[in-house]
Amino acid sequence: MDSVAKTFASLSIKPIAHISHSDASSPATWRDALDANASAPAKPYELIKTLVYKPKTAKKTTPVPVVVIARDDTETNAGSLGKILDLKEMRLASEDLLTEFFALDKNSLSPLALNQNTFPRVLTVIDSSIASSSSLFAVHALSSSSTVFLSGKDVVDYLRHLETDSVKIQELDFTTLAVAPAASAKPVAKDKDDGKIDGAVQIAVGIKKEVDFSGWYTNVLLKADMLDYYSVSGCYILKPWSYSIWEEITQWFNAQIKELGVQNAYFPMFVSQSVLEREKDHIEGFSPEVAWVTRAGNSDLEEPIAIRPTSETAMYPYYAKWIRSHRDLPLKLNQWNSVVRWEFKNPQPFLRTREFLWQEGHTAFLTKAEADTEVRQILDLYRRVFEELLAVPVIPGIKSEKEKFAGGLYTTTVEGFIPTSGRGIQGATSHCLGQNFSRPEMFNIFVEDPNDPMGGKTYVWQNSWGLSTRTIGVMVMVHGDNQGLVLPPRVASIQVVVVPCGITAKTTDESRAEINNACEQLAQTLKKSGIRAKADLRDVYTPGYKFNDWEQKGVPLRLEIGPNDIAKQQTVTVRRDTGVKNPIGIANIGFIINALLDTIQSDMFDKAKAAYDSCLKEVTQWDDVVPVLDNKCVVVMPWCEVEECEDDIKERSGRASEPQDERAPSAGAKSLCIPFDQSRWSPIIAGKTKCPACGRDAKRWTLFGRSY
Amino acid sequence: MDSVAKTFASLSIKPIAHISHSDASSPATWRDALDANASAPAKPYELIKTLVYKPKTAKKTTPVPVVVIARDDTETNAGSLGKILDLKEMRLASEDLLTEFFALDKNSLSPLALNQNTFPRVLTVIDSSIASSSSLFAVHALSSSSTVFLSGKDVVDYLRHLETDSVKIQELDFTTLAVAPAASAKPVAKDKDDGKIDGAVQIAVGIKKEVDFSGWYTNVLLKADMLDYYSVSGCYILKPWSYSIWEEITQWFNAQIKELGVQNAYFPMFVSQSVLEREKDHIEGFSPEVAWVTRAGNSDLEEPIAIRPTSETAMYPYYAKWIRSHRDLPLKLNQWNSVVRWEFKNPQPFLRTREFLWQEGHTAFLTKAEADTEVRQILDLYRRVFEELLAVPVIPGIKSEKEKFAGGLYTTTVEGFIPTSGRGIQGATSHCLGQNFSRPEMFNIFVEDPNDPMGGKTYVWQNSWGLSTRTIGVMVMVHGDNQGLVLPPRVASIQVVVVPCGITAKTTDESRAEINNACEQLAQTLKKSGIRAKADLRDVYTPGYKFNDWEQKGVPLRLEIGPNDIAKQQTVTVRRDTGVKNPIGIANIGFIINALLDTIQSDMFDKAKAAYDSCLKEVTQWDDVVPVLDNKCVVVMPWCEVEECEDDIKERSGRASEPQDERAPSAGAKSLCIPFDQSRWSPIIAGKTKCPACGRDAKRWTLFGRSY
Repeated sequence: MDSVAKTFASLSIKPIAHISHSDASSPATWRDALDANASAPAKPYELIKTLVYKPKTAKKTTPVPVVVIARDDTETNAGSLGKILDLKEMRLASEDLLTEFFALDKNSLSPLALNQNTFPRVLTVIDSSIASSSSLFAVHALSSSSTVFLSGKDVVDYLRHLETDSVKIQELDFTTLAVAPAASAKPVAKDKDDGKIDGAVQIAVGIKKEVDFSGWYTNVLLKADMLDYYSVSGCYILKPWSYSIWEEITQWFNAQIKELGVQNAYFPMFVSQSVLEREKDHIEGFSPEVAWVTRAGNSDLEEPIAIRPTSETAMYPYYAKWIRSHRDLPLKLNQWNSVVRWEFKNPQPFLRTREFLWQEGHTAFLTKAEADTEVRQILDLYRRVFEELLAVPVIPGIKSEKEKFAGGLYTTTVEGFIPTSGRGIQGATSHCLGQNFSRPEMFNIFVEDPNDPMGGKTYVWQNSWGLSTRTIGVMVMVHGDNQGLVLPPRVASIQVVVVPCGITAKTTDESRAEINNACEQLAQTLKKSGIRAKADLRDVYTPGYKFNDWEQKGVPLRLEIGPNDIAKQQTVTVRRDTGVKNPIGIANIGFIINALLDTIQSDMFDKAKAAYDSCLKEVTQWDDVVPVLDNKCVVVMPWCEVEECEDDIKERSGRASEPQDERAPSAGAKSLCIPFDQSRWSPIIAGKTKCPACGRDAKRWTLFGRSY
Repeated sequence: MDSVAKTFASLSIKPIAHISHSDASSPATWRDALDANASAPAKPYELIKTLVYKPKTAKKTTPVPVVVIARDDTETNAGSLGKILDLKEMRLASEDLLTEFFALDKNSLSPLALNQNTFPRVLTVIDSSIASSSSLFAVHALSSSSTVFLSGKDVVDYLRHLETDSVKIQELDFTTLAVAPAASAKPVAKDKDDGKIDGAVQIAVGIKKEVDFSGWYTNVLLKADMLDYYSVSGCYILKPWSYSIWEEITQWFNAQIKELGVQNAYFPMFVSQSVLEREKDHIEGFSPEVAWVTRAGNSDLEEPIAIRPTSETAMYPYYAKWIRSHRDLPLKLNQWNSVVRWEFKNPQPFLRTREFLWQEGHTAFLTKAEADTEVRQILDLYRRVFEELLAVPVIPGIKSEKEKFAGGLYTTTVEGFIPTSGRGIQGATSHCLGQNFSRPEMFNIFVEDPNDPMGGKTYVWQNSWGLSTRTIGVMVMVHGDNQGLVLPPRVASIQVVVVPCGITAKTTDESRAEINNACEQLAQTLKKSGIRAKADLRDVYTPGYKFNDWEQKGVPLRLEIGPNDIAKQQTVTVRRDTGVKNPIGIANIGFIINALLDTIQSDMFDKAKAAYDSCLKEVTQWDDVVPVLDNKCVVVMPWCEVEECEDDIKERSGRASEPQDERAPSAGAKSLCIPFDQSRWSPIIAGKTKCPACGRDAKRWTLFGRSY
């Protein structure tokens, strides 16, 4: 930044602030990093994005990249842009090209990357409204972990001083581009069998899943209208498109646990300090993240009060009170609530948020056998939420001692996997707490033992189990593609969208009405068959725009009806998951579509399962561990189950080439779970099969991987 | 307390603490008052209750009251007690008798009320475990607003020093009484047509509704297992028996608003200080009650963060972002969440709690007409929640300017009424916010007006509306009786309980099995007809105990099956609301019971409606206002709608004899609502009908009353 600083001085540009912050690998994390930084100026300020496109040029010509500078939330439609600039097939430049031209990665890119050397070699396009804006703009200072704050005029002044007689910046009114983003674009629906990725669609999501996964992820969530960022860092707004998925899960899970005799209740969100800190191991696990209320109105509270990070210690004093006799057992309560864990790591929507929605079940039994049984019953429900509702394969198993729930006896888990990042992800956990919370020095929850002729005291056996909105994040990561979200039919709030097609300027009003009516009637017919269907009759948008819109949002099935379809008494089905198009007759349409949705659901699961399975690598010698991890796979190895060995594995696998990534903190591998189903792998021979990490006797096949 | 203090000194009794606190009118409020008092010793401590019974004696004999001293949560079954003491028909003593004997009301009573004068005239019974307990005990110091903390030994020492050769205290092991509380009591089911209140039942609830309403209320909630007190003052645990009612309301309301196009979402519970304080009037209304998070883990936050007291200011910055065009309107979102209002007034379960569950809808429209329409649509749904689900009559109307929502344009409400206290209670409110939150200096939510040929800006019209768990408290207060809760069938999680009867020691195992099977089968048959039925086959309890248990919990209908009923292919129905008993054949039982539940539902509503109507008193001269209020009724008068007049009415009616009651703070009358249906009262003649309070021209008939 030294040369930039000199230029600033020569131009009398005085940045409002220049700050360092945690590394920003996407606009979202950049915003979060600034929000979290005390040295950042007071809001509001706007982020400046800098995109580099490479238009199509003859093979041997030196490419002239197009550098687009705009507000982060301004739509920069490459198609429209190309039209105005008269450039063909503008595509986002590769990382290689960025390095070649600017010696910077895309996250560090900013207008300041342009200098006497680079400016003449590119075409610089800037949103014309920036120069005159009274906003403050955040601009990367040649690094993704450094930001300067400039006025709009400063930004433009900086660029103007680079102008030569032959190379000028080009100011463009981007709002005119955004008015009808796809109006002139061709319909994006296409036969995907040819495997090509359509340019317009690429722009819709903006970032490729396989290129910048975390950027892709946040973009998909925003474009699919699932979520918005919120003014309190680490908290997010769940919009109806994602909340409805949570409602589907809630409804299904509620019905299942009711069958098991679990009742819903509600405990307060506040926990007094003394109660929260009752269990030592437990509170050690949570205390760094507890949010404390210390003031109400203008009065300081006598004692700070915690917001629950989980409710064990809040609930169990009452369990002690309510459980007076073995006849009060089992006690099975569940609550749907939100909990707060004030993480200081970089937040990630759905996966790591400071407040999140979940259910927490808390049960108490007379015997360990009953508790054990329930732990597994609940875990199987969690498996079904993932596999049957979300079409996401998981592996049920038990956590190592190191990874179990703080204060519990043992933890069972369903472990998912994100193929794109090669990382494991904990899906949901069902804990047996044993008698750790019921023993006399803790919450003292006991009954007279009905099986003891002397009527001695017996302490109850407890479980707790939770499933959170993390489920939604996992689903997005597993199924989403470069066109956006892909929703499994069972949780899609709209399963089928019906889009009228073939309406042109020449179409008569009657014909238009006929097509729209046919669409509406088809949607109604489907609804009667229990399908969540919607006809998209918005008259200001082209079919192409609508196709794109619903594809971004992941609607599992699109039905198209045009004049020809009406004549033939048919509709054309287009699957979101495969892109496959098929005309079908409208007789028995409800039955056919229901069957097709079932097929989509199971195809999505099968595809994800195949991807997971192909990444489970049986390893029996240490040398294979790091290559398997680096190859974005999960290590399955016969393990000794010794805690020091697990620490050692993490340490040794962390030495690998991959740099520490703050958003996925365990570059070293940790144990994900010990699968219940050991029969997938060759039998472990006691005393003979050795742990490849330490050479001790192996006990069970265990998954190790990098993880979220 | 001077003489008591002297006695303490002479006996070397040193109280751990002696504190003053807010007046405790029930064990629950006593506990709250102690919890809230900084001078109280650290928990745990136990409350001592002192009950006075009057056994049946010959008319002219001087009664010898029985003073029972026990832990507050120890069951003191008067029936069993009477048996052991060989006393008949023990009943709780009247207030008159307490005053006569002790010169104290029941809330001030404690072992310290016994002295050289009173002790010889009563029979004193104390739980034998108190003397040896290591617990600390809270004992009223001759006043319901004063408490001393003593050891168990201190309490017994104090009493022992009063003993004479002929009068001793009697120590009893109360746990033996509690083992089978109703085992020897007769079934409490009876024909209520004779209007008598059964002794055993009276004890079940403990406090009469018409004698000590707030004590009755908390007792009903505890005995019906709806709620428990919580270690954070002002917060309560919603147990499944009440939470299931909330689930019923949730489900119904969700289906209704979905029809109106409202979608559910979730916004974070945290609000930044700057956002919260954006609307001046609005924040003035809420700021004294806002809870602030200032610390996370061990780090102080840079800026305190509020927990939402309501979400207008949290949501509307995003409405401004999301609403870009008139095509984005209407925007209709709702969320089910909890909000926090840290009230410093005495809390009351469901009615005034620091955290409560609710839904909050937030909608935005292009025009005022659309907003107005929705305000009323939602209000009618609220009316239906009360009237159709909870069988609680309400009066829909508009709030006065003084009583409207802080920052809104106008507020509509459904106003309920609690006949026992003669107080009005706001049921739920639907606000039109007008353009107060959308205007440019606030959240600046606008679109281009599609109806304006010049395309000018128009600011959106907004509504917000909320319904909370307060609904449940109102329902309990309106329907409950001296046997406990009475649930309307539509919200009862168990609508019908089937109880096996006529099983004695002589009953053969086969016969017992036959009766139990018949009960279970009947319950299954009812379930198939969509009725929430349960057979109570617990074998350790007598039918009488079960009758009492389910009556306390308010189950709308009991079915009894004994050997005779099996022979006659019948069952006996017993209605909770009326006590009416009827044998019915079991043919078409599902149909019959469904019809009977409908009848119970509408009878409960009709009864409550008649009670409300009979307390609406048309008043046209000022002199009638206070007598009507003192007679526990609501004033309906033609009102000028001038704010100063409302202040004046409150002031003048507050001067009445009734003392200020902290738990129902408005002893002065305030306007409850201006009913939409004005046709119930004689027409107001413009310029002629005068406001009885100030003599100005009256505008509309308005309800005034004391209120919650």
